Amino acid sequence: MTPEEFRRYGHWLVEWLADYRAGMEGLPVMSGLRPGAVRDRLPAAPPEASEPFSDILRDLDAVVLPGLSHWQHPRFYGYFPGNGELSGVLADFLSTGLGVVGLSWQASPALTEIEDVTVDWMRQAIGLSPAWTGVIQDTASTSTLVALISARERATDYALAHGGLQGEERPLAVYVSAHSHSSVDKGALMAGIGRDTLRLVPFDAGYAMRPEALAEMIAADLAAGLHPCAIVATTGTTATTAIDPIEPIAEVARRFGVWLHVDAAMAGSAMILPECRWMWRGIEGADSIVLNPHKWLGVPFDCSLYYVRDPQHLMRVMSTNPSFLQTAVDGQVRTLRDWGIPLGRRFRALKLWFVLREQGLEGLRARLRRDLDNAAWLADAVRGMPDWAVVAPAPLQTVCIRHRPQALDGEALDRHTLGWVERLNRSGAAYLTPAVLDGRWMARVSIGALATERRHVEALWRDIRAAAEGSAPPA
Amino acid sequence: MTPEEFRRYGHWLVEWLADYRAGMEGLPVMSGLRPGAVRDRLPAAPPEASEPFSDILRDLDAVVLPGLSHWQHPRFYGYFPGNGELSGVLADFLSTGLGVVGLSWQASPALTEIEDVTVDWMRQAIGLSPAWTGVIQDTASTSTLVALISARERATDYALAHGGLQGEERPLAVYVSAHSHSSVDKGALMAGIGRDTLRLVPFDAGYAMRPEALAEMIAADLAAGLHPCAIVATTGTTATTAIDPIEPIAEVARRFGVWLHVDAAMAGSAMILPECRWMWRGIEGADSIVLNPHKWLGVPFDCSLYYVRDPQHLMRVMSTNPSFLQTAVDGQVRTLRDWGIPLGRRFRALKLWFVLREQGLEGLRARLRRDLDNAAWLADAVRGMPDWAVVAPAPLQTVCIRHRPQALDGEALDRHTLGWVERLNRSGAAYLTPAVLDGRWMARVSIGALATERRHVEALWRDIRAAAEGSAPPA
Repeated sequence: MTPEEFRRYGHWLVEWLADYRAGMEGLPVMSGLRPGAVRDRLPAAPPEASEPFSDILRDLDAVVLPGLSHWQHPRFYGYFPGNGELSGVLADFLSTGLGVVGLSWQASPALTEIEDVTVDWMRQAIGLSPAWTGVIQDTASTSTLVALISARERATDYALAHGGLQGEERPLAVYVSAHSHSSVDKGALMAGIGRDTLRLVPFDAGYAMRPEALAEMIAADLAAGLHPCAIVATTGTTATTAIDPIEPIAEVARRFGVWLHVDAAMAGSAMILPECRWMWRGIEGADSIVLNPHKWLGVPFDCSLYYVRDPQHLMRVMSTNPSFLQTAVDGQVRTLRDWGIPLGRRFRALKLWFVLREQGLEGLRARLRRDLDNAAWLADAVRGMPDWAVVAPAPLQTVCIRHRPQALDGEALDRHTLGWVERLNRSGAAYLTPAVLDGRWMARVSIGALATERRHVEALWRDIRAAAEGSAPPA
Repeated sequence: MTPEEFRRYGHWLVEWLADYRAGMEGLPVMSGLRPGAVRDRLPAAPPEASEPFSDILRDLDAVVLPGLSHWQHPRFYGYFPGNGELSGVLADFLSTGLGVVGLSWQASPALTEIEDVTVDWMRQAIGLSPAWTGVIQDTASTSTLVALISARERATDYALAHGGLQGEERPLAVYVSAHSHSSVDKGALMAGIGRDTLRLVPFDAGYAMRPEALAEMIAADLAAGLHPCAIVATTGTTATTAIDPIEPIAEVARRFGVWLHVDAAMAGSAMILPECRWMWRGIEGADSIVLNPHKWLGVPFDCSLYYVRDPQHLMRVMSTNPSFLQTAVDGQVRTLRDWGIPLGRRFRALKLWFVLREQGLEGLRARLRRDLDNAAWLADAVRGMPDWAVVAPAPLQTVCIRHRPQALDGEALDRHTLGWVERLNRSGAAYLTPAVLDGRWMARVSIGALATERRHVEALWRDIRAAAEGSAPPA
């Protein structure tokens, strides 16, 4: 495609995307397509000849749009807020258009240095001390895997340089909670630590890890000849946004010399609000932290921040230095390929830079406070209604609810819950993703899409009641 | 940013990017900035208040542009062609603007199904049988890590579900070549296999792995009580594009029951040319393959394709199924989070889809053949000149050269080589990235940027000669 064609089609696409965002409220939130419906619209074989670009663009409305569940929709309450601020969308467009790859500092100095500066801006914005240094990863899954590999190598004094994990006598153990994200278990397994020594620490009534139980498990494992290696605590779990108490957990980690990784993928964005920082009190005692500005904060996916207190250790674990990547200035610059798994690197810092500047911390704080207020409003409304319950503490923007008419219980209650959520989702009025809590399904309402205002949450509550109460079994 | 502001600034950015691409030839290829020059232009603290977007855009010319080494430049010959076709840039803009995240099929059915179809289009385009199924990963580093974890789990019969790597008696061994990419070693180390059992298989005069030496090493390791686990062969190594002979290597892998992963990150794109497929003859005997359409093929970074013959095994190793990700249709659809490490997933298939359709296989083949011709022209020119040598076979688009006036040798030759490459890069006329071959530096000329025509390669050869011969020590 020539630059002249790019102008023509680029302008068209800007208008299409602006119309998409501006007109989204009229679309059903969740795609109603049946499995295979998109696939059936596409040829089975690749095109031999070039197609007119206008034909390709026609497929946006014909093929792509009906196959989307709209994450930027004001009535999207699924998973987590996966916000893509339009200023960040332009920054990412710029990144792709420039098409530079950050294999080394020299391969595009601005890529490394703007990442350096903006990741440090975020450190300040969330109230971390200058003892932390950060880097952009793709997702929290990857950041947590990097943390667990780093923990493994600290515990084994760099076994990777010798016999690897198999050269170790005492089996390494990792401590997580049943409410940790699935990526935490997965990270430990990927790192070579088996499920046999992946310990599930008990949680309290608020679904938070119990530090005294953690300490007991570690002591027992030590006595049994295991080698405690890492603890993963969560600030804002996925199912209920539970808050593991970092301060006493860090004290346990310090006492036993175990790596502490804090998964603040979702709630880390809230740390720009001073009134929320109690949630990770004691964070300076951790070894590594992940938070995802590509969630609530609004930096377009993917942009996961990984902070460590000991960058020398990280680089020693991750670094490679083949001749084809060496440059004359290597000693004077930061080499980001040694801060994670992939060698190749997009200019992702641009979108963090643009969003922070275009919104300002004031703008970001105001929006997050709006969402916290909306969640508190919904929680109050649910608590005030007979047969309805808020089933977990709601310190952030996620409200976990259940409708339990006529003392429904067991599988009948599960069928009712999944039934009304599915009906609500199918109606197009909202998109919720349920989860299991204490063995029973409940509905998670994750508030915080960019466009979600109080009126949307009020309408949601009416729609939820209609879907659930209208379908309750007759009394 | 509102949709109306997005229209205004979006149109401006389309023009800026079109001008950037159209006018690139006038820019120096490599950034000449000193370390810290970009950082010094930026405030040390994050902005409290929102900044006008026009101020941010002004920084494109003032701060970003001077800090770029231009990968899309017709005179870029560094690393590998990291091409970003403009049709793919628009597709990626669309992906970011839509802002959907593929956590599950239901989270946006089109994301999964278009990935499914386009990855299968690529399978057909590169001549693989229907026994292969693929998925998009971010980079070859990640794909290779996934391959090595898969190999580890096959060799140990899913040790991750039990004692992990430490539960295994016999140390796992991985077989690579000294010419394998640095990500291969790194992947093995990340997977928990130590350097002690990372075997470097000898290579032949063309820098290709020697299958009979491989077989001997595996047999000796078996006799010594090790557990051979994976072989990584390369189609087109990074330093010289050497071609490991897949057919006999696959025979060794089959004989000993060892996983064979083929790294075709760079040369995989060339497999759309039937005349190049001899390079991976025997590929059907491999277990996994990685190739990066974000290199020579022109799909904007990042888009790495990972193909496997046993998807059930991959899913068994990678799958997690927490309640918050379950949906009613899970049994009927493909769940791409179980095909790799990250949970979150951009709509990357759009750029593969757009580039394949806009270019057509015919267009892509014609461009790659142009680049092969240009590389052959340069290799001939170098071979025909006294004091110059092509120092490795050049089956693809990379020509490895050395200027050796007056029988310069040893460190004097290295100083001369690095000196003229650095002078050429600093001049802005071209960007080459040297590498070490047989213990001595040489210059890699990696041809294949989208805009590179014969006239650029002819000019490059003149510029190379001027930089090297003009600076040779007096006779």
